Amino acid sequence: MTDRIVDFLRRRNEDGPCMVLDLDVVRDNYSSFAKALPDTRVFYAVKANPAPEVLDLLARLGSCFDTASVVEIEQVLAAGAAPDRISFGNTIKKERDIARAHAHGVSLFAVDCEAEVEKIARAAPGAKVFCRILCDGSGAEWPLSRKFGCAPDMAGRVLEHAHRLGLVAYGLSFHVGSQQRNPRMWDGALAASAAIFKDLAERGIALQMVNLGGGFPTKYLKNVPAVRQYGKAIFEALRKHFGNRIPETIIEPGRGMVGNAGMIEAEVVLVSKKSDEDRMRWVYLDIGKFNGLAETMDEMIRYPIRTEFDGDATEPCIIAGPTCDSVDVLYEKEPYELPVSLAIGSKVLIEGTGAYTTTYSAVGFNGFPPLKSYVI
Amino acid sequence: MTDRIVDFLRRRNEDGPCMVLDLDVVRDNYSSFAKALPDTRVFYAVKANPAPEVLDLLARLGSCFDTASVVEIEQVLAAGAAPDRISFGNTIKKERDIARAHAHGVSLFAVDCEAEVEKIARAAPGAKVFCRILCDGSGAEWPLSRKFGCAPDMAGRVLEHAHRLGLVAYGLSFHVGSQQRNPRMWDGALAASAAIFKDLAERGIALQMVNLGGGFPTKYLKNVPAVRQYGKAIFEALRKHFGNRIPETIIEPGRGMVGNAGMIEAEVVLVSKKSDEDRMRWVYLDIGKFNGLAETMDEMIRYPIRTEFDGDATEPCIIAGPTCDSVDVLYEKEPYELPVSLAIGSKVLIEGTGAYTTTYSAVGFNGFPPLKSYVI
Repeated sequence: MTDRIVDFLRRRNEDGPCMVLDLDVVRDNYSSFAKALPDTRVFYAVKANPAPEVLDLLARLGSCFDTASVVEIEQVLAAGAAPDRISFGNTIKKERDIARAHAHGVSLFAVDCEAEVEKIARAAPGAKVFCRILCDGSGAEWPLSRKFGCAPDMAGRVLEHAHRLGLVAYGLSFHVGSQQRNPRMWDGALAASAAIFKDLAERGIALQMVNLGGGFPTKYLKNVPAVRQYGKAIFEALRKHFGNRIPETIIEPGRGMVGNAGMIEAEVVLVSKKSDEDRMRWVYLDIGKFNGLAETMDEMIRYPIRTEFDGDATEPCIIAGPTCDSVDVLYEKEPYELPVSLAIGSKVLIEGTGAYTTTYSAVGFNGFPPLKSYVI
Repeated sequence: MTDRIVDFLRRRNEDGPCMVLDLDVVRDNYSSFAKALPDTRVFYAVKANPAPEVLDLLARLGSCFDTASVVEIEQVLAAGAAPDRISFGNTIKKERDIARAHAHGVSLFAVDCEAEVEKIARAAPGAKVFCRILCDGSGAEWPLSRKFGCAPDMAGRVLEHAHRLGLVAYGLSFHVGSQQRNPRMWDGALAASAAIFKDLAERGIALQMVNLGGGFPTKYLKNVPAVRQYGKAIFEALRKHFGNRIPETIIEPGRGMVGNAGMIEAEVVLVSKKSDEDRMRWVYLDIGKFNGLAETMDEMIRYPIRTEFDGDATEPCIIAGPTCDSVDVLYEKEPYELPVSLAIGSKVLIEGTGAYTTTYSAVGFNGFPPLKSYVI
């Protein structure tokens, strides 16, 4: 929570929840990444928060951008970044979207199979490709599924195929899992990457780049290591596996860049119990899974919640959203301690909500509007 | 799949997935509900699909409407339904939204606790309220959480409180679980309702109405009983528990009214394997959890998927959406049989997608636009 956000909210008198994002925090975060990994280029993961003000600031600071779609590419170009600062990082692309990206001047693409390489060879001839490898993600609060990437022993063949089709077999990428709290988790994937570099070099293909992915955490309720600890651990792992031939590296922070810059203000709509015997209160907010807090699914992300009654006695509560949808419950398996004095009409502040909130909002589920967003 | 939808899609040549909804099917569904439960008023659950054409049609057919928010109330009024055909069925309402609904002429409200009764007494004096009771939902493909409703023994007190505050203690409601495939599941909740009617009558409060809720299924992969079987089972349960003093009843079909009227056309973006040893193909579509198919969460709803290769040999596949989000996987725990001949660029038709698809869409997650919707 920053003074600027507090001031902004004090002057606001609209109805409904909103997310306020403080650009000063984003500037600090960018600077921390740049300092922690001085030889690594930062590709901001636009999907975390594509607000034009965020993209404008990062473009001015010299950031590069990891994009998931042609719309995101166009948002980044509109912010003034040149196409050589853009990676089309989605491994799942329509061939006509690759052609559109290519027409915009984008020349760096993610792949994880030969079929995707073939699309790129046709639609963006000569482009650079990096192959994503699977990585187990232990230690992450949100380990990723196997959706993206291929087995390391397949990656060599994918990149050879790219080389054969006239593309630049540029490098590798992996992702150690979202909200990764263990800085040493890059080690295993870098070991696998170094082996692929070596293997391909022997076959005459000189890879140049390792995309270290995202996974850099935001502080929610638990403390997380500082960015410089990630920088140190990653540099050590690079030295260990690549010796004095460290490749070009890039990182793709999203949550780590904007998560702690944003805060949601919401309102308590109802507080009730289900029966006389029920010990547990239900606290219903005007924000839920469908208008901003999608990342509470399976209670994965546990946001810090501040109230005007902090310091009063607390009780465990079930917290739910405002829709008529029974899955719109935020915290129930592990109830949340909130002040007993919290009442209908009270405001609550939900911290660490700068990433993966606004764009996850449903267009109008139950008639509730998408989450309002203010960038200050 | 109807001929009208097939014709429409044949003439469409835009990029991106879309949902097409055939109003003729909605008309048939309305008529089936009206015939199956001739003494029951139909309150269409607007949240299932609030497309203006759907609301217009149902308003003309004489339907009433179950709404979740003031926006939905205004959508129904715009469709030409009078406010006495609207229920504000969300048990979680801001007091100022109750006042707005009251100002629009709405006078029927859901409650499940005394605090909500007090808001209504202040903001909509004299209104009718019904109290939602908890109900265990066994037999439903999507049993509901405990989010809505109170224990039956608390409901009497909630309604007495309403009576004392000058509201009309009008009745009870419950919900037997979404996609409820057992028509006998209304029996237990009606037994509990009859007991509360009796108890309150002894205390001088004559309840008049039982809101039988929704839960009426759409046919996905498994067959479901016909609406007339639900009508028969519900009527029998009403007779059994209320004898010859059957109260006024209403139902709130949403999925059952529009689910089978809609179909999504999508495209295969990528087909790949993760390793040489991997038996399982991954099929990536241009639609996923964030642009329409939110109800695949936990693989709850298993949609029928048609392809131009139906009849060819099939293989189990993991099906995933197009975003860079690792949770955007539709069917993995229980892989889906799809034709081996399905390839990149193939179209697929996803049936039973008229309900809970368009409005669940994210505003622009990963830059992907919300699901397009056509009502024909």
